[in-house]
Amino acid sequence: MLPLPNQMASTKPMRAIFAARGGAQALLDVEAALARANAALGMISAEAADAICAACHARTLDCAALAQAGAHAGTIVIPLVAWLRSQVPDHAEAVHRAGTSQDIIDTALVLQIHRGLSLLDDDAAAMASSLAQLARTYATTPMLARTLLQPALPSTFGLKAAHYLTMIDDLRGALRAAATEALTIQYGGAAGTLDGVSTNAPAFIAAFATALGLPAPALSWHTRRAPLARLGCAIAAGLGSLGKIATDMILMMQAEVAELAEPAAAGRGGSSAMAHKRNPTLSILVRAASLRAPHLAATLLSAIPQAHERAAGEWQAEQAVWPDLMLTASGAFAAMRETLAGLVIDPAAMARNLAFAPGVVVSAVIPALIERACAQHDTCSDEP
Amino acid sequence: MLPLPNQMASTKPMRAIFAARGGAQALLDVEAALARANAALGMISAEAADAICAACHARTLDCAALAQAGAHAGTIVIPLVAWLRSQVPDHAEAVHRAGTSQDIIDTALVLQIHRGLSLLDDDAAAMASSLAQLARTYATTPMLARTLLQPALPSTFGLKAAHYLTMIDDLRGALRAAATEALTIQYGGAAGTLDGVSTNAPAFIAAFATALGLPAPALSWHTRRAPLARLGCAIAAGLGSLGKIATDMILMMQAEVAELAEPAAAGRGGSSAMAHKRNPTLSILVRAASLRAPHLAATLLSAIPQAHERAAGEWQAEQAVWPDLMLTASGAFAAMRETLAGLVIDPAAMARNLAFAPGVVVSAVIPALIERACAQHDTCSDEP
Amino acid sequence: MLPLPNQMASTKPMRAIFAARGGAQALLDVEAALARANAALGMISAEAADAICAACHARTLDCAALAQAGAHAGTIVIPLVAWLRSQVPDHAEAVHRAGTSQDIIDTALVLQIHRGLSLLDDDAAAMASSLAQLARTYATTPMLARTLLQPALPSTFGLKAAHYLTMIDDLRGALRAAATEALTIQYGGAAGTLDGVSTNAPAFIAAFATALGLPAPALSWHTRRAPLARLGCAIAAGLGSLGKIATDMILMMQAEVAELAEPAAAGRGGSSAMAHKRNPTLSILVRAASLRAPHLAATLLSAIPQAHERAAGEWQAEQAVWPDLMLTASGAFAAMRETLAGLVIDPAAMARNLAFAPGVVVSAVIPALIERACAQHDTCSDEP
Amino acid sequence: MLPLPNQMASTKPMRAIFAARGGAQALLDVEAALARANAALGMISAEAADAICAACHARTLDCAALAQAGAHAGTIVIPLVAWLRSQVPDHAEAVHRAGTSQDIIDTALVLQIHRGLSLLDDDAAAMASSLAQLARTYATTPMLARTLLQPALPSTFGLKAAHYLTMIDDLRGALRAAATEALTIQYGGAAGTLDGVSTNAPAFIAAFATALGLPAPALSWHTRRAPLARLGCAIAAGLGSLGKIATDMILMMQAEVAELAEPAAAGRGGSSAMAHKRNPTLSILVRAASLRAPHLAATLLSAIPQAHERAAGEWQAEQAVWPDLMLTASGAFAAMRETLAGLVIDPAAMARNLAFAPGVVVSAVIPALIERACAQHDTCSDEP
Repeated sequence: MLPLPNQMASTKPMRAIFAARGGAQALLDVEAALARANAALGMISAEAADAICAACHARTLDCAALAQAGAHAGTIVIPLVAWLRSQVPDHAEAVHRAGTSQDIIDTALVLQIHRGLSLLDDDAAAMASSLAQLARTYATTPMLARTLLQPALPSTFGLKAAHYLTMIDDLRGALRAAATEALTIQYGGAAGTLDGVSTNAPAFIAAFATALGLPAPALSWHTRRAPLARLGCAIAAGLGSLGKIATDMILMMQAEVAELAEPAAAGRGGSSAMAHKRNPTLSILVRAASLRAPHLAATLLSAIPQAHERAAGEWQAEQAVWPDLMLTASGAFAAMRETLAGLVIDPAAMARNLAFAPGVVVSAVIPALIERACAQHDTCSDEP
Repeated sequence: MLPLPNQMASTKPMRAIFAARGGAQALLDVEAALARANAALGMISAEAADAICAACHARTLDCAALAQAGAHAGTIVIPLVAWLRSQVPDHAEAVHRAGTSQDIIDTALVLQIHRGLSLLDDDAAAMASSLAQLARTYATTPMLARTLLQPALPSTFGLKAAHYLTMIDDLRGALRAAATEALTIQYGGAAGTLDGVSTNAPAFIAAFATALGLPAPALSWHTRRAPLARLGCAIAAGLGSLGKIATDMILMMQAEVAELAEPAAAGRGGSSAMAHKRNPTLSILVRAASLRAPHLAATLLSAIPQAHERAAGEWQAEQAVWPDLMLTASGAFAAMRETLAGLVIDPAAMARNLAFAPGVVVSAVIPALIERACAQHDTCSDEP
Repeated sequence: MLPLPNQMASTKPMRAIFAARGGAQALLDVEAALARANAALGMISAEAADAICAACHARTLDCAALAQAGAHAGTIVIPLVAWLRSQVPDHAEAVHRAGTSQDIIDTALVLQIHRGLSLLDDDAAAMASSLAQLARTYATTPMLARTLLQPALPSTFGLKAAHYLTMIDDLRGALRAAATEALTIQYGGAAGTLDGVSTNAPAFIAAFATALGLPAPALSWHTRRAPLARLGCAIAAGLGSLGKIATDMILMMQAEVAELAEPAAAGRGGSSAMAHKRNPTLSILVRAASLRAPHLAATLLSAIPQAHERAAGEWQAEQAVWPDLMLTASGAFAAMRETLAGLVIDPAAMARNLAFAPGVVVSAVIPALIERACAQHDTCSDEP
Repeated sequence: MLPLPNQMASTKPMRAIFAARGGAQALLDVEAALARANAALGMISAEAADAICAACHARTLDCAALAQAGAHAGTIVIPLVAWLRSQVPDHAEAVHRAGTSQDIIDTALVLQIHRGLSLLDDDAAAMASSLAQLARTYATTPMLARTLLQPALPSTFGLKAAHYLTMIDDLRGALRAAATEALTIQYGGAAGTLDGVSTNAPAFIAAFATALGLPAPALSWHTRRAPLARLGCAIAAGLGSLGKIATDMILMMQAEVAELAEPAAAGRGGSSAMAHKRNPTLSILVRAASLRAPHLAATLLSAIPQAHERAAGEWQAEQAVWPDLMLTASGAFAAMRETLAGLVIDPAAMARNLAFAPGVVVSAVIPALIERACAQHDTCSDEP
């Protein structure tokens, strides 16, 4: 069971992917694809592949026992394969044929991340829609621009929303680009030399990739971890952008400023000691994630220098970071989506605070700037 | 359920403290102590306190539902208090009297860390004993000293073990010192002003501290987080020291060097693809922890600047880090303890590799150095 | 004067860009471009622009005094503009027209990074050429593949070099992609509202961008820092890849393994105390950089949440990180380039160490894998 | 010459210690002490020691050339010793007798840190004095306590200052304790075996320590880096505490809150574009330092696992971090000292903002809490 804070700061669908059972399922999905690839090349029978695939379901797996056995063996794959063989006693030899721990584990992680990113992108798309609407609706609603937390010049809330929109569009584009580079199957065999399938390696790899719906790279990436680390950095940078928006929200929700409020929900934002309080609950969750994410991404960067053909520590360190990063991201993305969908804006308060800046007029160019951001957004969104 | 890698890299007793149920239990332990303090000052009846304390058991709590409700409310304490009140309907008003979310959560975290550090210290004490024995046994067993991973001069394995011993002694001393500074009760009331108990604050705080067996600080530490962060840094530094030893082990276990082996255990260190391999499974786990820990500690450092009387993000970020740090430490400490207890040493291989250094003699001062480290260790160990 | 370690671990051309005078020159280059843009729109005279551009040389600037005055004022731009005005007394009013500190500082940083990346790419291109040659030359030179630092299966040194080659190609592609996204001019005016040029903003921005030879973004990026942070992460990931290669080198240079040596150079790799030593000096420098870079990149990620229209701390933190990251990268890139250009390979030692693996044959598919990596490299290198 | 941002964010006395010439001087100070120790044991003549000590001044040293030669040799000590020998041609043999690069470099770093911490402690002592006075002066000046950046309950500015005071006292105590553990001489010889002085090691070490005025540890700490890393963490934690205070200042200086102002100084806090602005210049510098410091400390933690008897990368990574950390700290400490010495407080604004909290009275216990913090401070300050 996840520690309470991690569980509170994540979403149920992401937990389904990254908590123990989801992790085991991803490993089994890869074993199933391995069986399909073996069958495609005639290395095991179609019947064996069917039986293995039918057994590759984590529903009845004792995940705690599996983890304990994996800790003893030094890799989760040894007890998992033993369990899978026990499920298909007639085809035990066909299980994990031409398989290597790292290939299974890396590809399963890629599957999990791929599934998780799809959840994040849904949230980000919804954020962008909300922001495009806010930008246009409040294009000429004047408010203070603030630099160094001091009143600077008049601007509009629409321009602020347009800037947020470019951040979300940037985030989505960056995640998509980084995922394209990083999320490929891993298949190199025991030491990157494709020993188990050396006579027909290209066909085997193609069949394995097809079974998983993922592309295959030119060479296996057993110790080429930079693309995965950069994907982690792109997620952390995206959380930083959400953290920027959340920071602004919290500042604008201060009682002395009072320009915004998070969407109200029964039972949210209360205090166990002070009944009068309305706390920026969602934004706080986002900021907490944005504080942690740089350090999670940095762990991935620190783990890149992986010795020889499989690292003794760096690779293993990566594996604990990814669930944490994706779970953390899920909570923050969901919270920001909800915030932006129901943001409560007080134009009168914005107008009132304008008095803190000298009597200059709002720049005439702002509506054009907003349109430029919205047009760019429309272009991004049209891309497949 | 914890993601598989986190579960594999931790120990069962530490999971009992930091996974969801252990976290809920710590919160309930604090609510119980709060009830005792209230009763001691006559703010609630002794009968109510007894009933509350009797109900403060997490056994039957639905931790997943609690986490979900906590995520909605913005703090776990609101649904926890609601649940506790439902358990003692006749004394519902007495529950959480003079309580504040942050006081409950911070003090519960302190309890958890206190319990977890005791596990780590047990492991470290065992490591030190093994090392003191190794240092003396192999005091004059010659081996290469290596600098920049090149042969330098002859030394002895006993001196290497003596250096490890000073690292473990240093680790234990540092954890104890940092814990003394950081692990105090938190009680400040809703905003650090002790409003709920202002007429008899010192007595109330003393009763609360007594009920928990923890000291009370001069002022509440709602936003004075440096001591807790330094404790996290001391743990990370300790994991770094274990990582140093594990790195050496892995290097000495290379087939070309072959001076050491991890203790053998049936079914450990095998490969799912290569039957001939013996992997440094325990040392790898330690190195992975030592790679992650600096980033976890840095998150705590990043979270120190907490605004006003309770932070909007930094405080919340801390809470997700501590379980991860303690769980990670538990696996690494247990693995290193096991490694050192059963280390297999090959003096002949050590002697053989001496040929890579020029023909100088082993420094005569080494036995005296080893004795100095062992004597210092004996002194440390005698301390309470 | 840089601290000794920073100076030792960087190259002279990168220091020319990022040490104080190079930084001042970049700021002056931006002021010159600002003058050109002003002149293009008739906001200042062509004569004034010419005079300003002629004065924008840091040669005679007292950089230490400038830094001190900047520290007092809170921004380097105020004393820099004062100095520039003093250089062109007849056109003092025309200096810094429509200029804002952040626009000047951000754009100057972009210029510096742009120049620095060009140096790094030169080094990386040379590394890739060396590696492509090594991959083909040693395509069938057998050596151990090692997993978890234990002997695994036979492979070839050519395949190892081919894997390194894909890492360098990946690094170059990633830096180019991240630079394209991040390295655009910054122009938003005092608060992102383009106040100073609101009547003809697009033309002004275009002229400013043209003068600098950099693209202009849709909106200014005063507080949209994710692209710059991702560029920093790509550099850190690239240093991680170099760190992977350096780690392998150091392991293969161990006396007990002895498969490789760094290129010899008179007076390098010696010991001040042990005359017999040959240290992996270049690889050590690379590893040190790869250890630091993740933390520098993480600082950039931590600095993304920048409040309102200019941050009070996060933006300023970025500025100290970039010189450090680029200087560190320069030393590591140069060292790895030199290492790969002169690597000394001992096929006999590689063959000897093969005895540590069981008697399997080298996978027949390896030459095809190498060709695939080299073909991919040729494609990358043909791109503009 | 330091990059402009590093120079702006540090103080002149700290630059004198950590920039190139200060670094070279510290190395020469250690060479001088080595000569004294050699002379004390009769290993070199007193005349030679006198000549060497007289030559150990960095004034005329070409630091840039030294760094370049050090980069080539792989250690700064080789060219430094060559230079020193050239300065005392008659005693060239006596220079660096029984010396090893790492002993010289580590001990020089300890000297630099020792000198730098003394500067930081002066600043911290001044901060504490200012805060003790503020706490007592404003003990009953009511202001809002704010939690999660929302109005919570009434408190007083004196209590806020008392909390800050406990943070500074904590910082000072932590730095002193960590320095005591970490700042000892390094002397182990080429590989930690004291080869050069094995017949009279204790006397030699004692003489070396005496010459430097630093304690000697039980064993050399060539690869026991945890104490130094924890000292770095204590500095980072202290910067976090300053960052907390600076964050509060910036929030209280917002125009809409207006409870505080930084001390005014001619020409500070202005804007190059907006004449009406008064920026929180000093607090921004502090916050920037507090953002960077956790990552610098984490680098030290990441560098703890140092292989065998001298690391190939981790040790070298440390050396670049320390100057950066100390220079960064110097600027932040000086800025916070200046801020607290001249803080402008507006009790009327504080009273006005109280209206945002419900009509409860200020807790009666506050003056007692303040006295407790001040009494604790007085006790700390009396310690030697």
